[in-house]
Amino acid sequence: MHFEALVEVRLRPGIADPQGQTIERALPALGFEGIAAVRTGKAIRLSVEAADEAAARRRVEDLCQRFLTNPVIEDAVISLEPLSPLERQ
Amino acid sequence: MHFEALVEVRLRPGIADPQGQTIERALPALGFEGIAAVRTGKAIRLSVEAADEAAARRRVEDLCQRFLTNPVIEDAVISLEPLSPLERQ
Repeated sequence: MHFEALVEVRLRPGIADPQGQTIERALPALGFEGIAAVRTGKAIRLSVEAADEAAARRRVEDLCQRFLTNPVIEDAVISLEPLSPLERQ
Repeated sequence: MHFEALVEVRLRPGIADPQGQTIERALPALGFEGIAAVRTGKAIRLSVEAADEAAARRRVEDLCQRFLTNPVIEDAVISLEPLSPLERQ
């Protein structure tokens, strides 16, 4: 089976995020109010072939641990969706 | 009401993604098989105060158009979740 995975790599709570702070500071001058707590991270999409969803999730978790994140300062949120053969084209 | 928004900024289909290609090329050497179509983007989380979900979504869409994305090469996927007063602390 094929799955589409979306991995959100985000900074752990308490880790400084200068890029998010810069966005947040710029907003009032652009006329945006009521927006706070801006945090930036990476979004990585990939397609995984695995026997079932649990196996696909394990593989993506392993990939996050070893390669996509720095576990000292980042964590990952993984969401998986089955891909139909039509969507794979 | 407060909402937590997750904005996924991704490259439009057909736009080259050298970072994603580099990840994909590195995977077999690390022992990962069955992973393809790696695409990288940005994940931005923010909290929005608005009267209702439609208003919050409009504000975040406007923000994406004007500030968070380059509409020539990127598009944005927005997901919104209501935040309870407890989670806001």
